Amino acid sequence: MKSLKLFAILFFSLLTLNISAQQKKYVMVIHGGAGTILKKNMTPEKEAAYIAVLTQALKAGYAQIQSGKSSLDAVEATIHILENDPHFNAGKGAVFTHDGRNELDAAIMDGKTLMAGSVAGVTTVKNPISAARAVMEKSEHVMMVGSGADQFAKEAGLEIVDPKYFWTKERWDGLQRAIKEDSTKAVLDHGNKKSELLGIKNHDYKFGTVGCVALDKAGNLAAGTSTGGMTNKKYGRVGDAPIIGSGTYCNNETAGVSCTGWGEFYIRNVVAKTISDLMEYKGLSVNEASKIALDKVGKMGGDGGLIALDKKGNVAMPFNTEGMYRGTITADGKIEVSIYK
Amino acid sequence: MKSLKLFAILFFSLLTLNISAQQKKYVMVIHGGAGTILKKNMTPEKEAAYIAVLTQALKAGYAQIQSGKSSLDAVEATIHILENDPHFNAGKGAVFTHDGRNELDAAIMDGKTLMAGSVAGVTTVKNPISAARAVMEKSEHVMMVGSGADQFAKEAGLEIVDPKYFWTKERWDGLQRAIKEDSTKAVLDHGNKKSELLGIKNHDYKFGTVGCVALDKAGNLAAGTSTGGMTNKKYGRVGDAPIIGSGTYCNNETAGVSCTGWGEFYIRNVVAKTISDLMEYKGLSVNEASKIALDKVGKMGGDGGLIALDKKGNVAMPFNTEGMYRGTITADGKIEVSIYK
Repeated sequence: MKSLKLFAILFFSLLTLNISAQQKKYVMVIHGGAGTILKKNMTPEKEAAYIAVLTQALKAGYAQIQSGKSSLDAVEATIHILENDPHFNAGKGAVFTHDGRNELDAAIMDGKTLMAGSVAGVTTVKNPISAARAVMEKSEHVMMVGSGADQFAKEAGLEIVDPKYFWTKERWDGLQRAIKEDSTKAVLDHGNKKSELLGIKNHDYKFGTVGCVALDKAGNLAAGTSTGGMTNKKYGRVGDAPIIGSGTYCNNETAGVSCTGWGEFYIRNVVAKTISDLMEYKGLSVNEASKIALDKVGKMGGDGGLIALDKKGNVAMPFNTEGMYRGTITADGKIEVSIYK
Repeated sequence: MKSLKLFAILFFSLLTLNISAQQKKYVMVIHGGAGTILKKNMTPEKEAAYIAVLTQALKAGYAQIQSGKSSLDAVEATIHILENDPHFNAGKGAVFTHDGRNELDAAIMDGKTLMAGSVAGVTTVKNPISAARAVMEKSEHVMMVGSGADQFAKEAGLEIVDPKYFWTKERWDGLQRAIKEDSTKAVLDHGNKKSELLGIKNHDYKFGTVGCVALDKAGNLAAGTSTGGMTNKKYGRVGDAPIIGSGTYCNNETAGVSCTGWGEFYIRNVVAKTISDLMEYKGLSVNEASKIALDKVGKMGGDGGLIALDKKGNVAMPFNTEGMYRGTITADGKIEVSIYK
């Protein structure tokens, strides 16, 4: 009788544990960029708008997963919402280059096959994440850049827009401020080695990239990232978002990863692949691996954040900035959205 | 007396071991591309020409190291020789895109600082490896693409040439053959899924990339890669060479790596960083790590090779093709150059 009682306790404990594990099985994680995001600088309206679109994006991807579609479909549907919303530095709402253009980068990767696609510097594709997916699925290549990538997207049947579609007043004003501040900074830097460098002198305009990692019912992971890059960027600068291994990487055996932040540091540290390798070769959890990889960026002087999701539904969302727009949804549809630390 | 004799034997044994270790300390390794390189298809004159330029390239870099200059200087000097020689698919002698242009990619990385620079799709810079180095040293960026990268190289004071400089008859004829064979292949592929893919249909024209890893007297590693990419490439396709972590990576704590081959597979496997991570996280030798990373490429259906050099002067040069133009030089100046298996 005593042993039966013990068995019953054990049984119900395991049941509870199982339910709790079920509830904590994440199937999607998204980010809308990391940076100097402070509550004191935010209006209640703006905050509500961010939360609303992050929630909408999660729901769009979750609907794909629930209907049995692939994690790639979920990532694409989710990122479409974020690209089409002007609040984020991706698709409509992308920042401007020094020359007043919107040059967009994106990448996507399939954790099951390790197939990947990316585009950099496209100017006419409404949804760059779909261009990245087309490169992966409709070409034998992984990366295409510039007008060639635009041409490919057109031939692949994607929606092409006039470059003016990407114009927003907020980003245009941001470029004017950046140009002004950079020229002031160049004067202040006079005599400093920094002033001899060609390129961006102000790093406060580099955030707002969007990304998503999803886990579908078949157990396959996919990861995607889309960005307008850095405000006032020159010389065809490309950041980490479209670089497989740096800003975007996905492998069913380890995790899917999408990064956001000061891209140069993410490339130099090959951040996304580092996370996967720390899991594969050192047996670390997705959380431990993500923290170590972000610490490498931080120690070099870089800042930003990242999202990662492993095949068991464990999630990591570290960042070393004031805030990161982010959200998760679990297998049972529970949504959590956060902005600040 | 007996113990003195034993001591003497031990002493001389250690001395011999030390000398042998000294002789086997490599300070540079280079490649000029991997591919279907068969002795039966090679004339003695052509073979001699390849051996001569590979030897000259090794000597150029070695002279830098011997004079106390940095491994970055050695890599740049070595790759200049290979870029300026029309035998290799880099700089002069680069293959043509589908549109009859030469679009050049290059990357360089400093193992001491993990600083890196890369360019993709430049058309007017005589030595793309120097453009990559300028991005690393004279900008705050890591990667620049297209005409922006050309403009940057010009402003950085590099030698600019008319795009015609890169034209060679052999490569032009190669493009005409590739276009003809691709159109034939497209007909043969009719009904096959492959024929629906946009892009290169023939993979026999992807080789000839050049690369170098050097170890200087201060113990610092540097790695660089330069390429014209794939013959008949379309849509602004970019391969692994300019992708930090894939075709090029360097870290004093592990190794410097430069890859050559079917770039798409190298990107999907993030090959160069994988080698570094296998060394750092699994404690493997540069040789073991290089073989495992290349095996991943091979298992997916990709082919090519790579060179790697660790901080102790151990070298690895695996390839899964018929041949790879390659060479090494040891600390005491001994040169070895090979082409076939």
